[in-house]
Amino acid sequence: MRSHYCGQLNASLSEQTVTLCGWVNRRRDLGGLIFIDLRDRSGLLQVVFDPDQKALFEQANKLRQEFCVKLTGKVSLRPESQINRKMASGEIELLATELTILSRSEALPIDFNQHVSEEARLRYRYLDLRRTEMSDNLQFRAKVTSSVRRFLDTQGFLDIETPMLTRATPEGARDYLVPSRTHQGQFFALPQSPQLFKQLLMMSGFDRYYQIVKCFRDEDLRADRQPEFTQIDIETSFMTAEQVMQVTENMTRQLFSELLSVELGEFPQMTWHEAMRRFGSDKPDLRNPLELVDVADLVKDVEFKVFAGPANDSKGRVAALKVPGKAADISRKIIDEYTKFVGIYGAKGLAWIKVNEDGLQSPILKFLPEPVVEQIIARTEAQVGDILFFAADSATVVAEALGALRLKVGEAFGFVSNEWKPLWVVDFPMFEEFEGGLAALHHPFTAPVGVTPEQLRENPTGTLSNAYDMVLNGVEVGGGSVRIHEREMQQAAFDILGIGEAEAQEKFGFLLEALKYGTPPHAGLAFGLDRLVMLMVGASSIRDVIAFPKTTTAACLLTDAPGVANPAALDELGINVKAKAKAE
Amino acid sequence: MRSHYCGQLNASLSEQTVTLCGWVNRRRDLGGLIFIDLRDRSGLLQVVFDPDQKALFEQANKLRQEFCVKLTGKVSLRPESQINRKMASGEIELLATELTILSRSEALPIDFNQHVSEEARLRYRYLDLRRTEMSDNLQFRAKVTSSVRRFLDTQGFLDIETPMLTRATPEGARDYLVPSRTHQGQFFALPQSPQLFKQLLMMSGFDRYYQIVKCFRDEDLRADRQPEFTQIDIETSFMTAEQVMQVTENMTRQLFSELLSVELGEFPQMTWHEAMRRFGSDKPDLRNPLELVDVADLVKDVEFKVFAGPANDSKGRVAALKVPGKAADISRKIIDEYTKFVGIYGAKGLAWIKVNEDGLQSPILKFLPEPVVEQIIARTEAQVGDILFFAADSATVVAEALGALRLKVGEAFGFVSNEWKPLWVVDFPMFEEFEGGLAALHHPFTAPVGVTPEQLRENPTGTLSNAYDMVLNGVEVGGGSVRIHEREMQQAAFDILGIGEAEAQEKFGFLLEALKYGTPPHAGLAFGLDRLVMLMVGASSIRDVIAFPKTTTAACLLTDAPGVANPAALDELGINVKAKAKAE
Repeated sequence: MRSHYCGQLNASLSEQTVTLCGWVNRRRDLGGLIFIDLRDRSGLLQVVFDPDQKALFEQANKLRQEFCVKLTGKVSLRPESQINRKMASGEIELLATELTILSRSEALPIDFNQHVSEEARLRYRYLDLRRTEMSDNLQFRAKVTSSVRRFLDTQGFLDIETPMLTRATPEGARDYLVPSRTHQGQFFALPQSPQLFKQLLMMSGFDRYYQIVKCFRDEDLRADRQPEFTQIDIETSFMTAEQVMQVTENMTRQLFSELLSVELGEFPQMTWHEAMRRFGSDKPDLRNPLELVDVADLVKDVEFKVFAGPANDSKGRVAALKVPGKAADISRKIIDEYTKFVGIYGAKGLAWIKVNEDGLQSPILKFLPEPVVEQIIARTEAQVGDILFFAADSATVVAEALGALRLKVGEAFGFVSNEWKPLWVVDFPMFEEFEGGLAALHHPFTAPVGVTPEQLRENPTGTLSNAYDMVLNGVEVGGGSVRIHEREMQQAAFDILGIGEAEAQEKFGFLLEALKYGTPPHAGLAFGLDRLVMLMVGASSIRDVIAFPKTTTAACLLTDAPGVANPAALDELGINVKAKAKAE
Repeated sequence: MRSHYCGQLNASLSEQTVTLCGWVNRRRDLGGLIFIDLRDRSGLLQVVFDPDQKALFEQANKLRQEFCVKLTGKVSLRPESQINRKMASGEIELLATELTILSRSEALPIDFNQHVSEEARLRYRYLDLRRTEMSDNLQFRAKVTSSVRRFLDTQGFLDIETPMLTRATPEGARDYLVPSRTHQGQFFALPQSPQLFKQLLMMSGFDRYYQIVKCFRDEDLRADRQPEFTQIDIETSFMTAEQVMQVTENMTRQLFSELLSVELGEFPQMTWHEAMRRFGSDKPDLRNPLELVDVADLVKDVEFKVFAGPANDSKGRVAALKVPGKAADISRKIIDEYTKFVGIYGAKGLAWIKVNEDGLQSPILKFLPEPVVEQIIARTEAQVGDILFFAADSATVVAEALGALRLKVGEAFGFVSNEWKPLWVVDFPMFEEFEGGLAALHHPFTAPVGVTPEQLRENPTGTLSNAYDMVLNGVEVGGGSVRIHEREMQQAAFDILGIGEAEAQEKFGFLLEALKYGTPPHAGLAFGLDRLVMLMVGASSIRDVIAFPKTTTAACLLTDAPGVANPAALDELGINVKAKAKAE
């Protein structure tokens, strides 16, 4: 129907007759003329109706906001004084010659010129998506997936679909279950990731696989989580960790160059241990220059138990965070606020020292010998005007508390630069301790570095995994690893994780079986597409880069899902809804 | 790790040193040498180990079928007599200089040189997918999606994801349900198609949408159905039916040209009524030249009730299928078989007339006046050697019975040409009658042609819909329509379908609401990707173009899904498995 999009019109088309389709974004009546801003997915265009064209003008007079119209007219240069530099078509306007009203609109139930609650935006999502910001976000997202696919296609990656109806594992917490009708009383699970299927595809010889694929996790939602999310999922055979990192880094670099004209350069690599030591995080935001400094060795022998205790504990840590030049700005009130804040992460207090013109100021000075304080000042290179914050606790609590404080202070006092700062975090521990056992830091299929199955069994916590996370501005955008491709190693990993032989057989029997028949060495990575797009467009919520997201209670306000199921359907599935739940 | 794929090696690389990774497809020991066929996803390569290289030869002697190896060697021309024209690399072989065994294989549990049951193939899918045929199928499928995406991207279509966890509708038969944990006792449904979401995207102004997306249908599976299947889903605003057909026809033409070097040419269009009349099918296979010929008008007045009854019934039909030149080949036994066959479609018998050298032969001649028989022979242009089959019943039964017989006979007697025969079927009726009411021939959102809501209400069965199906070689590969974009028309369609106002509000309230706010005219189409790929590669089953398909009872034999769910998880979901079902 149309000859152009609004955003395609500019001064070069002056005097040409064009036809457009779109919506009335705004109407103004001015000096006897009717002006409308016509909107389509590409942008806005000013259209003028002249009262001399009587029939047309009468028709135009019926136009209201959000009417859907087809318009023909002549492109005309605006007088210099009326040029709108903010609009792509701001140098021109359309002198209308024909108007067809394709569809009328009632007054909108929400007014986007006012503040609109997110609930209202989600309920009327189709209206919310008409807003330029949202429309641009989703158009950008389509460009991202298109660019990613083109890159991977040219690199010989094959787009292969894996099932959505997969095996429910007995303990599969966070699995979405799908009751089976043909196998009453049994359930499928929606995949949390295609991990095992992509490994099986490597065993099948496909070599380079990718998929942009929905994954599902039924967990309590945080602000930036969705029950269904999208992964750029990649797996390769015969490639080392370095090679997988290289190809995915190239992909990311190309993406930023193509779509944002940003040159990311080569990504630095940092070990997990260094990241935790310097930034208290396994996904450090390198735009923030603040760093943690370890001081446990300096306070080992002080009488101040708060410091000496963790300093002498093999699992403890004592560290300082220096905030340069902000001693005067950080009041007692702010310190109290920070103390409360680090409490969220388990820190029992927040010691501090200010370096003032007239000497040190701190409630803990009295507990520390002067030489120790001097050594701390020397090591942290604290200058007049700086303030030091201290945390002394288990290494985990110290990292989390000071890592979080580092981000908060960095944001609050403008330390965060306006750049793109990617990096790879590597050399993760294979396992982390939790109450009563060991858990995989990545997942149970991650290969260890340089050990035999026997050596892994002997020293699981001392073994590093061949895993790598891509971090961008403090966000983990991708994570992956070399996978175990030997049955004995896989069995060792299961054993260490407390997955007995029977359980392993029950849950992963097909994988252990498959490992018998010439499994190639393989490695892969998965990007969180939603998060990546959110970062790239600078959205504040993951919901702003998803067309039809769920709320934080996993509901769709637009379609009112989930809903009540038909009893006959439940009967066919062989399941009952419990009365108690029903009543609620 | 590799420098080349097996399939990339040819005589032009003679004397070069290359490195490959792959699997031992076969080993032969011959004349003191060891030969292996190395296999990777691109094909096979013959590798020779020379006993003079002792250490290497010893290593090679360990090789067994399906060992995964890395091999370096020199490309060497084969002697003329040993050239294998069936292999891409058949002119050369590799003289091995280095061998690394990356992974060993036990003896395979199945021998693909023997007949392997489909059950075994599905259970050991990762081995089945190593076979060239299956590997090629999935690689071809990846090329199809890549080509489709490239085409649609360049045409300005936006890839936008729609939700997988959608609204369960009260009567949603065939929905896969997903119990919600945060809303106990309530359920999501997996989408049977993104129909309503893509319409909402048009209301949002995205204009041209596509998605290659999983859809779900929990129905009794036939041979070529899968519980999860993939659609190329397309929707546009401001385009007519003709324009949507043009762009998707172009897409299909490019696909065939690019991937099969087949030029499909312009697709003919045929009305639904013509297709039913001439071929007894809404998806006629035009490679088959046999056609139905209507003769009701000729037999209206005969005493033979079997013919005269349907001929005088407004919903009846009497038609003939002529099989040229096969009177002698079609024995009484075959006719009996065909009679049984058309019985499946409800035909109560199968009358026939053979035109022999010595006159007509038929059990029904005695019931028909000679002039009538002559007229039938004239109209069907039956020649000596031809046989005519007759069906007389309701129009539906006649079309289905003779339509199916046409295909069966066409196949059996080699009438089907070896071509690609696409067409568009258009001008469908809006509704079809079923017991107790009217059902939508496409779906309730399909727009009628050229009527007001009042006219539609007055004459629903006489109204045509603005729908179109793309048919290729008798397979419906795509189907679509212009959608209703006016609330009154949508309400009329719901009313005719017996969906009352309350029910419409309950189920489609959000759609009816959305229709109020300037909905653009829109139209779309969905291709069945699995079926399309199956056609293009000539696979005999849809399961042969899906990496990890389900069985006909919707089970995954590889991972043993569906499975038993954890009682604690069911408790969290607020559902019970019924004891009876459990026991079974």
